Amino acid sequence: MTIPFGDALRLRSGPVDLTAIDPNGKPAFDGDKADGEEALPTLGPDLADLQERLFAERSAGSERSVLLVLQGMDTSGKGGVLRHTVGLVDPQGVKITSFKAPTEEERVHDFLWRVHRALPGPGLIGVFDRSHYEDVLIARVRSLAPTEEIERRYDAINDFERELVAGSTTVVKCMLHVSAEEQKQRLLARLDDPTKHWKFNPGDVDERALWPAYREAYEIALERTNTDVAPWYVVPADRKWYRNLAIGHLLLETLRGLDPQWPAADFDVEEQKQRLADEAPVA
Amino acid sequence: MTIPFGDALRLRSGPVDLTAIDPNGKPAFDGDKADGEEALPTLGPDLADLQERLFAERSAGSERSVLLVLQGMDTSGKGGVLRHTVGLVDPQGVKITSFKAPTEEERVHDFLWRVHRALPGPGLIGVFDRSHYEDVLIARVRSLAPTEEIERRYDAINDFERELVAGSTTVVKCMLHVSAEEQKQRLLARLDDPTKHWKFNPGDVDERALWPAYREAYEIALERTNTDVAPWYVVPADRKWYRNLAIGHLLLETLRGLDPQWPAADFDVEEQKQRLADEAPVA
Repeated sequence: MTIPFGDALRLRSGPVDLTAIDPNGKPAFDGDKADGEEALPTLGPDLADLQERLFAERSAGSERSVLLVLQGMDTSGKGGVLRHTVGLVDPQGVKITSFKAPTEEERVHDFLWRVHRALPGPGLIGVFDRSHYEDVLIARVRSLAPTEEIERRYDAINDFERELVAGSTTVVKCMLHVSAEEQKQRLLARLDDPTKHWKFNPGDVDERALWPAYREAYEIALERTNTDVAPWYVVPADRKWYRNLAIGHLLLETLRGLDPQWPAADFDVEEQKQRLADEAPVA
Repeated sequence: MTIPFGDALRLRSGPVDLTAIDPNGKPAFDGDKADGEEALPTLGPDLADLQERLFAERSAGSERSVLLVLQGMDTSGKGGVLRHTVGLVDPQGVKITSFKAPTEEERVHDFLWRVHRALPGPGLIGVFDRSHYEDVLIARVRSLAPTEEIERRYDAINDFERELVAGSTTVVKCMLHVSAEEQKQRLLARLDDPTKHWKFNPGDVDERALWPAYREAYEIALERTNTDVAPWYVVPADRKWYRNLAIGHLLLETLRGLDPQWPAADFDVEEQKQRLADEAPVA
């Protein structure tokens, strides 16, 4: 099985330098915007088929699931991926969780508490819009926790994800890699469009002054949690169409790798047909 | 505002006779199957726009939400509605809950306990695939609770739904009305297709012998819970395309009735543009 997008976007091990990865790139794809926008919906039938097989498997006792983690700076397009890519599969098979600033209840628990509660059950594709990585990203940049607690969290995340994978969840972590300039254009576009004002927060502009600190926090997090069992993919996100298409392919390649099978009947098919044929009139 | 599907499918008050409603009908729609299949996706843009407005409203403090309840016999197409109709809107804005036989934990609580936990938050469209109505349907037919408890539940449901509506949730209850003969054909189709065997349960054939008891249980439930604040719609479901289209229209008409508005900016738009224009170089 070829997994061109997975191979192309998989973060290599070792030190991470995000400035060396082009946010405007389109690895593994030759076409232009029109080609990309045309290609995305063509993934729909295969995605839907594989998702339904995964879902069906659980009726035969399979506990397999997929967890797609979406991380990225504001405007990098997590919502767009949910709408355009995740929206291609049956919503019954998807469990989306958007992680906001922790509530009071969440803050008194360990940072992974709320994440455990959001994990996909057997047969489901879970999607995290932000995730436990915020607890080593904004938490680091904004000093929301003591340094030693932040340090502890990288290992805690790796242990947590190793357990997840051992428990039959396939973890696909995507960093939506947007440039500071493209973010600026997207913020300006939101300001220019009254139907997008609700998405704009003046605090987003303040955060831009911390861009280098966020990049460093991402680089540290990516390097320290880029494990064999739960690898990171860095998805160039300056082109929305490429970002949506690439994540569609990553999801497709992941599902193909799982190769879920329709469960065999655990009853006698002919006998059931006969029962229906022989039944007394129903009305 | 015209609400042709709402008007046509709304259950009239008074005694309910399901045998008088044609499961093969297509109220409020003149076209044939090809027309209906073509018409469904054309609802997508309006549905998506209205759903996003509803979602956006919560950022301005709105607590409004929608709850779509799907009830119907096996094979009536609850899953198909989720896939084809609910699938037209952004999955971030939808919270789907499939109610199965209650777990041990759920059984020790009041029947509405698990339902409360599944309600949509502000800005969301909640969808129930089966619901609290199972507790007066199969519970009645199979005597899963004492008669006086079942009797109590109709009023409890009405009180619960009245509270829901008072709390800004618009409740749309759809009974997918399929005929016994069409159900038989759909069960046979599942038996003929190995990719659908996992959906078949020999118990489904046993339940068919209780068809008249289920119909009576539905008629009683529909009559007693068809309130002004949370009305029932009976959706002919022998034609899958009509069922999907009709529920799409009911959802659209409901959202149009809510007329959600884009929130106004709670900041000075020009000032924010200026801040972005004036910022120090970011990288």
